Amino acid sequence: MDTRTSPIRLRLDRLREAMRAAGHDAVLLPSSDPHLSEYLPAHWQGREWFSGFTGSVATLVVLADRAALFADSRYWSQAESQLAGSGIELVKLASVGASGHLPWLAEQLRPGQTLAVDAAVLALDAHTALKRAMDAAGVKLLTDADPLAAAWPERPALPAAAIYEHRAPHAATARADKLAQLRAAMAERGATHHWISTLDDLAWLTNLRGADVDYNPVFLGHALLSMQTLTLFVDPSKLDASLVATLARDGVAVRSYAEAAAALAALPREATLLIDPKRITLGLRQAVPPAARLVEAINPSTLAKSRKTDAEAAFVREAMARDGAAMCAFYAWFEAALGREAITELTVAERLSAERAKQPDFVSLSFPVIAGFNANGALPHYRASADAHAVISRADALAAEGLLLIDSGGQYLGGTTDITRVWPIGSPTAEMKRDYTLVLKGTIALSRMRFPRGTPGPMLDAIARAPLWAESLDFGHGTGHGVGYFLNVHEGPQTISRALPAPETAMQPGMITSIEPGLYRPGRWGVRIENLVLNVPAPADGFGEFLAFETLSLCPIDTRCIERSLLRDDEVAWLDAYHATVRQRLAPLVRGGARDWLEARTRSL
Amino acid sequence: MDTRTSPIRLRLDRLREAMRAAGHDAVLLPSSDPHLSEYLPAHWQGREWFSGFTGSVATLVVLADRAALFADSRYWSQAESQLAGSGIELVKLASVGASGHLPWLAEQLRPGQTLAVDAAVLALDAHTALKRAMDAAGVKLLTDADPLAAAWPERPALPAAAIYEHRAPHAATARADKLAQLRAAMAERGATHHWISTLDDLAWLTNLRGADVDYNPVFLGHALLSMQTLTLFVDPSKLDASLVATLARDGVAVRSYAEAAAALAALPREATLLIDPKRITLGLRQAVPPAARLVEAINPSTLAKSRKTDAEAAFVREAMARDGAAMCAFYAWFEAALGREAITELTVAERLSAERAKQPDFVSLSFPVIAGFNANGALPHYRASADAHAVISRADALAAEGLLLIDSGGQYLGGTTDITRVWPIGSPTAEMKRDYTLVLKGTIALSRMRFPRGTPGPMLDAIARAPLWAESLDFGHGTGHGVGYFLNVHEGPQTISRALPAPETAMQPGMITSIEPGLYRPGRWGVRIENLVLNVPAPADGFGEFLAFETLSLCPIDTRCIERSLLRDDEVAWLDAYHATVRQRLAPLVRGGARDWLEARTRSL
Repeated sequence: MDTRTSPIRLRLDRLREAMRAAGHDAVLLPSSDPHLSEYLPAHWQGREWFSGFTGSVATLVVLADRAALFADSRYWSQAESQLAGSGIELVKLASVGASGHLPWLAEQLRPGQTLAVDAAVLALDAHTALKRAMDAAGVKLLTDADPLAAAWPERPALPAAAIYEHRAPHAATARADKLAQLRAAMAERGATHHWISTLDDLAWLTNLRGADVDYNPVFLGHALLSMQTLTLFVDPSKLDASLVATLARDGVAVRSYAEAAAALAALPREATLLIDPKRITLGLRQAVPPAARLVEAINPSTLAKSRKTDAEAAFVREAMARDGAAMCAFYAWFEAALGREAITELTVAERLSAERAKQPDFVSLSFPVIAGFNANGALPHYRASADAHAVISRADALAAEGLLLIDSGGQYLGGTTDITRVWPIGSPTAEMKRDYTLVLKGTIALSRMRFPRGTPGPMLDAIARAPLWAESLDFGHGTGHGVGYFLNVHEGPQTISRALPAPETAMQPGMITSIEPGLYRPGRWGVRIENLVLNVPAPADGFGEFLAFETLSLCPIDTRCIERSLLRDDEVAWLDAYHATVRQRLAPLVRGGARDWLEARTRSL
Repeated sequence: MDTRTSPIRLRLDRLREAMRAAGHDAVLLPSSDPHLSEYLPAHWQGREWFSGFTGSVATLVVLADRAALFADSRYWSQAESQLAGSGIELVKLASVGASGHLPWLAEQLRPGQTLAVDAAVLALDAHTALKRAMDAAGVKLLTDADPLAAAWPERPALPAAAIYEHRAPHAATARADKLAQLRAAMAERGATHHWISTLDDLAWLTNLRGADVDYNPVFLGHALLSMQTLTLFVDPSKLDASLVATLARDGVAVRSYAEAAAALAALPREATLLIDPKRITLGLRQAVPPAARLVEAINPSTLAKSRKTDAEAAFVREAMARDGAAMCAFYAWFEAALGREAITELTVAERLSAERAKQPDFVSLSFPVIAGFNANGALPHYRASADAHAVISRADALAAEGLLLIDSGGQYLGGTTDITRVWPIGSPTAEMKRDYTLVLKGTIALSRMRFPRGTPGPMLDAIARAPLWAESLDFGHGTGHGVGYFLNVHEGPQTISRALPAPETAMQPGMITSIEPGLYRPGRWGVRIENLVLNVPAPADGFGEFLAFETLSLCPIDTRCIERSLLRDDEVAWLDAYHATVRQRLAPLVRGGARDWLEARTRSL
C-alpha cells in the first residue's frame, strides 16, 4: 500500500494547506475542549482526527514538514501501532502530564516563526507555560485561531443529549445548599462572581446530569455564579420547561451555550471574579473585562465534590453491592462456559455489561469494558474491537491458557464503580502467579494503610509499589485516581501517583480513590488488581488526625493465581477478611449459580 | 524579675532605634550568611543575637511594636523556652522550610511601609519569593541595608582559621580532575564562567579544608571559575606560601575575600555566567554587569559532590568501622559504670568524643553530641549544658530509669559519620519498648528498600513512617538527609522527606543519606534509630534501573528495648544479619571490655 494515501496523511495535507493559507508554521492540537475535560465529544477530537491515535491523552504538533505526537507510557504501544504509516513520529513522555512538546517546539521552530493554538481549548495555566517556553525561543504564539475550522469539514456537531435532574434521595444535598456552600467559599476569597467551565463541577453543583460525553453523565455548559443568581450557559433545547421552572425556583437562570463569553465580557466593573487557572480556558479568561479583579484558586466545587457526604457514601456502598452482584452473575456464567462456548474479549464486554444493566438504578457503563487476554492485558488502556480481539474459549476447548484482565465499571444513580480483576484461563504459570501475587501485595499494603490527614499522593503511591520494587518491577501509571459520585470515573483533585503533589491533591476524609497497582509484560500478560476505597477517619493518638481506607468494591479476588509462599500471614488475613465481607454483603443479592460461584471464590486461603 | 530588662529586650530596643533612624518599618533577619550555609559563623548569627533563640534554622521579623520568630516543629519547645520574656512571639511553621513569614509580613505591614533585609545574606530564590509577596502587599522591599551594622557593636569578627589541603589518598579525585569535570558541565550549559559561594562546594572542588564553621571543615570563600582559571576569594592570611604555590600549579589564583563582588562586576561583556539561584545571594547577583548572560542551574559541584566515588566509598567504610570501634569502647565503659559512677548527659558527650578522638584520621566531631535522657530525648535538637542537663547515674545507683538517646558523629579524613542509638537505663517500660520497636521497624523497612533510580524523597520517606502511621504515630522531621565526604554532615541536594521534590533531590547511585525515623513523647522520652546508607545499584529485570541501600554505620542496635512480638521474622532476620556484619567488621578493632560488649550486644534475637 502506498502509505502516502493513508487517510491521516490526506487529513494532514489539508491541515498543512490551511496552515500555509493562515501563515502558521506550526499548529498545536491538545487533547482538550472548552471544558478541559479528560474525555471529549467528537466535535473536539481534532487531535484524534488528524493523528489517528484514539487514546484519551496526547498532544499533536504539526509542522510544515514534520508532525509529532507526545504520549506517556500508558499509550506507547497503542500509539506506535496507530501512528504506523501516518508519518507522525511518536515522542515518548517519561511521565503522565509531562510537557515534552515545549522543549521539542522550542528546538524545531526558529525565532520569528508562528505557532497557532486555539485559545478556546487551552487551559489558562497551560497557556502560561506555553507562552513562557515560546517567548524564550522567540516563537510567536497565536491563540486567536481555530486550526480545525478550515481543515476539518467533516467535523461532528456538538452533542445534544437531554439534561435531567439527579433527584433525591440519591442527590443527597439540595441544589440550594450547594449554591450556598459555594457562595460562602466565594465570600471567603472576597469574590463576587465565580466562573465554572468544568462539566463535572457543573453537574455536581446543579444536581443535573446529561449524556454529552460517553460514559460521563455530564452536559456541555458553563456557569456564572453571583451572590444572587446562577446563570447556566447550555443549549436550551436540552431542558424541558418544567426543569427550567424548577431551576428558576433555586435562582438558576438558563442562557444559550454560545453566550458564555459575552456574559463574562459584561461583568460589572466592580466584580471580583474567582477562576481556577487549571479549569478555565485562555479564551474565556480573555473575555473578562480588564477592569474586573481576578482571584485565582481551585474551584470550590472541585474540593467540595471530592469529599463525599455520609449520605452519598451510604448510597455508594449500595451501588457497590449491586455492581458486585452483577459481576457474580457474569463470572458464574463465564467460568461455566469456559471451554464449552465461544467466548472472545468482546463477548466478555457484552455479557458483563448486560448483567450490570439489569441492576436497579443502573444508568450506563462508567467506561468501556477493558477485557484483555494475555498480551492484550499488558496494554493498560486496551479496548477490543470487531477487527482485533482475542478468542478466549471455543465451543469445545479453551482457545489458550493464561490470564484475563477485566477492568469495568458502571454509573448508578447512587455512585460510580470501577474495578479490575484478573482471572486464570486454564492453569497459570509460576511466573504469572508470582506477578499476580506481587501486585496483590501492593493492593493489600495500600488498602490497609493508616496515614496522616493531608498525606500527599506520592507517599501513598510508594506503599503500593514497594512489593514490586523489591523484585525490581514497576508499572507506568499512577496507583490511584479520584472517582465521582454518579459522575466521572476520573475525578480530581486527589491522585495517588508520583505526580508532584499540590496541597489540594492530598488525602481528605470522604474522598473516593482507586487503588490499582499493576504489572505489564509486553506481549505476554498484564496484571492489575483494583478496588475503590473511601477515606475514613482513623483513631488518633496525640499525633494529629489520621485516615484509613474503607474498601468499597465488592467482588472476589481470584485466589487460584496466588503464589501462597509470597504472602505473609497478615496479608492472607486481610484477604480472608475481605472475602468474608464480600460473601456477607453479596450473598443476599445473588442466587443459583452466581451464589455458588460467590461461595467458591470467597473461600479462605 | 522585670522582663523589660532582659538582654534580648535591650538588644531589640537598639535594633528598633536603628530602624527608626533608617526609616525601616520592619527588618527581616534570616538564618543565613553570604554562603547560604546551614551553620553560621558567629559574625552572621544576628538572628540568634537579637532573639536569644539558638536553634540553627528560624527567621526573625522585627517591627516597631511586635517581633516574631518563625520556626518548624523541631524547634518549638526550644524556642518557647528561649523566647520566654523576650516579647518575641513564636510562629509555628507546619513544615521544615515553610515560608510562614511571608503571609505574616503581608498581613502586618500596610501598603507603602518598608521592609529591610540585607541582600548580602538573602538567597536569590528567596528574594524572588519575598519580592513577589511584598509587591502583592504593596510593601517596599529595601535590600541594600545591613540592619545589623548599626545595632550590633559587639558583633564578632570573621573567623580566621587556617586552610589546609585534603590530600590523597583520602582526597580520592585530584583537584585538576574536578576542575575539568566542572568545566565540562559549564560547557554543556553554554557557560564561560561559574560562580560558587557555597562552602562545601568550594571545599570539595579545591580539595581544601578549613575550620571557619564549627564541626564543618570548611573555610569562608567564594570562587569564580572560568575555562582557564579558578579564582578563590579567601582571606589570604589563611593560606601559607607553599599551599598558594601548589594551587597555582592547578591554575588556582587567590584574591582577598572582600574582592568577590568587584570580581563579578568586572566580568567580561561577553561572559555567560552559570549561577545557582538557591546558592548565590541577591547581593552578588546584583554585582553581575547587566551585559553578562546568565544561566541558572544547580551548581554542578553540588551534584558531583553528592555522588561519592568508589574510592571515597571505600574510605567511608573504613571511617565507619573506626567510628564503630570508638562507640564500642565508650558504650562498654558506659554500661559498666552505670550505677557505679556519676554520669550525666555531659559526661556521655565528653567520654564518647574522647573515644572518637583516639581514632586514626579523626579530625573533629561532625556536630555536638546530642545525649538526651528521657524527656530531653524528646527534643530532636537537644543539647545539654552546664546549667541544664540530666543526671543518668550516681556513684551508688541509677539516677532514674528510662531511655537515653545518643546522636553523634565524627569528621575523619576518609568520611563523615552520624549515628543515633537509644539505650535502656534500668528496665524500659512496655510503652517505651513499643515506641522503640515501631521506630526500628521504620529504620529496617527503609534500609532494605529497593527502588527505581530517581525515586523522589517523599516516596521513600513514607516507607520509614508506615509502621508508625499504622499506630497513628508520626514524627516531625524528615527521615533522612544527605551527608558529605569529610564535609558537612547535612549536604544536599537529596533528602528523604515530605518536602516537595525537585528532580535533583531524587536518589542517585553513590549518594550517602541518613535513615533516621523517630518518635518523640514530649516530657517523657524520645526514640530515634539512625544509620547512614549508601545508594548502590540493584539487579535490574527489564523495568529500568533499580537502587538499594548499603548500610554504612556500624554499631549494635540495642535489642533489650525490643518488643519481639511486634517484629516480623523477616525484620528479625535483617537485624540479626546487621549485627553479624557489625560483629565481624568491628571485632578486629576492639579489645577487652569493648570486645565483650560488642559480642553481647550483637547476639541474634
